[in-house]
Amino acid sequence: MSVDVSVSSQLPGANGSTAFLDRLARRVEVVRTYLCLGVDPDPASLPRGFSRDVAGVEAFSRLLIAAASPYAAAIKANLAFFEAFGSAGIAALERIRAAVPSEIPFVVDAKRGDIGSTAARQAAALYDGLGADAITANPYLGREAISPLLERPDRFVFVLCRTSNPGAGEFQDLSLEGHPLYVHVARRVAAWAASGDQVGLVVGATAPAEIATIRAAAPTLPFLVPGLGAQGGDIAAVLEHGPATAAPGSSVTGGGLIVSVSRGIASAALDTADPGAAIARSAQTWAHQLRC
Amino acid sequence: MSVDVSVSSQLPGANGSTAFLDRLARRVEVVRTYLCLGVDPDPASLPRGFSRDVAGVEAFSRLLIAAASPYAAAIKANLAFFEAFGSAGIAALERIRAAVPSEIPFVVDAKRGDIGSTAARQAAALYDGLGADAITANPYLGREAISPLLERPDRFVFVLCRTSNPGAGEFQDLSLEGHPLYVHVARRVAAWAASGDQVGLVVGATAPAEIATIRAAAPTLPFLVPGLGAQGGDIAAVLEHGPATAAPGSSVTGGGLIVSVSRGIASAALDTADPGAAIARSAQTWAHQLRC
Repeated sequence: MSVDVSVSSQLPGANGSTAFLDRLARRVEVVRTYLCLGVDPDPASLPRGFSRDVAGVEAFSRLLIAAASPYAAAIKANLAFFEAFGSAGIAALERIRAAVPSEIPFVVDAKRGDIGSTAARQAAALYDGLGADAITANPYLGREAISPLLERPDRFVFVLCRTSNPGAGEFQDLSLEGHPLYVHVARRVAAWAASGDQVGLVVGATAPAEIATIRAAAPTLPFLVPGLGAQGGDIAAVLEHGPATAAPGSSVTGGGLIVSVSRGIASAALDTADPGAAIARSAQTWAHQLRC
Repeated sequence: MSVDVSVSSQLPGANGSTAFLDRLARRVEVVRTYLCLGVDPDPASLPRGFSRDVAGVEAFSRLLIAAASPYAAAIKANLAFFEAFGSAGIAALERIRAAVPSEIPFVVDAKRGDIGSTAARQAAALYDGLGADAITANPYLGREAISPLLERPDRFVFVLCRTSNPGAGEFQDLSLEGHPLYVHVARRVAAWAASGDQVGLVVGATAPAEIATIRAAAPTLPFLVPGLGAQGGDIAAVLEHGPATAAPGSSVTGGGLIVSVSRGIASAALDTADPGAAIARSAQTWAHQLRC
């Protein structure tokens, strides 16, 4: 596959922000929204007319990107929905990646994290193979483990902090040394960023009080926020506490915030004669609700 | 690809243990070792004569399995080393999987974990696509998130508890009510198992004191132990505290323990005229050191 990395491989900009944050900010200045189009195509939820196999998933993903990306600050593909089809699914994602407009930052939601020698191969898969400008990673193994994912100044890592699922609190809410685990993660990741890592946090929109707490603990960090739409998150809390409040995150347009909506847009294509038009209308509405 | 699941899809056995643990025990009764052959082929570390690309990685993986599997209780493939080659790498792993002898349990080391709708697609990828009898998963999102990975009575999930990397303690050692996070994970996963989940723990051999602590906290759980060989783990501590000490783990031959050795075996193939013979000798030596 051919991936254009000429823009994302720029060195950090004059204002100290990273190439990824610069790219994102340039896109946000055009579309004036935090909306990140999520591409999580479940074959069981495709509109009529799309086959419930890898071909249908690819065709629907392409339609989704073509119809919604004019309104999106970023695009996030969820790797699991392609891995589920094995090598054929990854091949489909490689083709879909090549169809993403070059001015739109591309995030691969993979939630990776492993010991260093393995993480180095994950970096090869995600950054080099799939041309990810940013990825998601799991903090459980610590910074040392995922350093191969972090040590790419032209890329960006959103580390899971407080996730959007109903049972997220089982471990994340454990109070360790006086603070919940997710606050420790936020503080540690902020320290990584202060030492030069290009990192932010994944903070679910379904936990509005936690968003405020995490913003206070990590004022500089860009947030990737999933959980609006199908998961029922709180849009007001996201808009209030989502953008970074201190540099470098706060020094770019949009404060480094991206808010992912997947099923909330894709479901507009169900039960309509013109899925593309319905997706475009839904994306436009979400972009307006998430305007910045 | 064609995957023989006729054995692994058996219902839980008469002794209450799971199909995976039964299969593993039957294999352990034959080979009398805890050795799990790790397949983590780094193209930069292939012996002479193997191309440093996906074809070389596939050829070396096949040699590794052919030469070492007669001495192994299980085989564990590390998905990242195949994902790094994109769709071609996954296609290679699908072919490699089909070459694994049907009497040897196959573990896919993927360290997955995501919200439920995504985890369901991960289950499709790993169990159905790659024919994994067991997988590894990350606990950070809690049981509710990874329930699609857990709710397969004929499969098995090893949950990360205390990992083998040097920086594992950054979050795993944070303390709550006098116990580190990894002990809380061990206790929660033991509770999941008591409620019927087919689960065990990943416990690194590089933390010998922690192995004893975790065994005391979770006496019933099977352990998958990486970190011997290249990572320099403590074999005596693994043999002493690795096998389960209470049912159901303790009721199967070998106590549900598998000890993964990857580079420790693969590196035997370097600088030798007969890589296959060198791998077989190394695997035989490891199997003897890890005899049960």
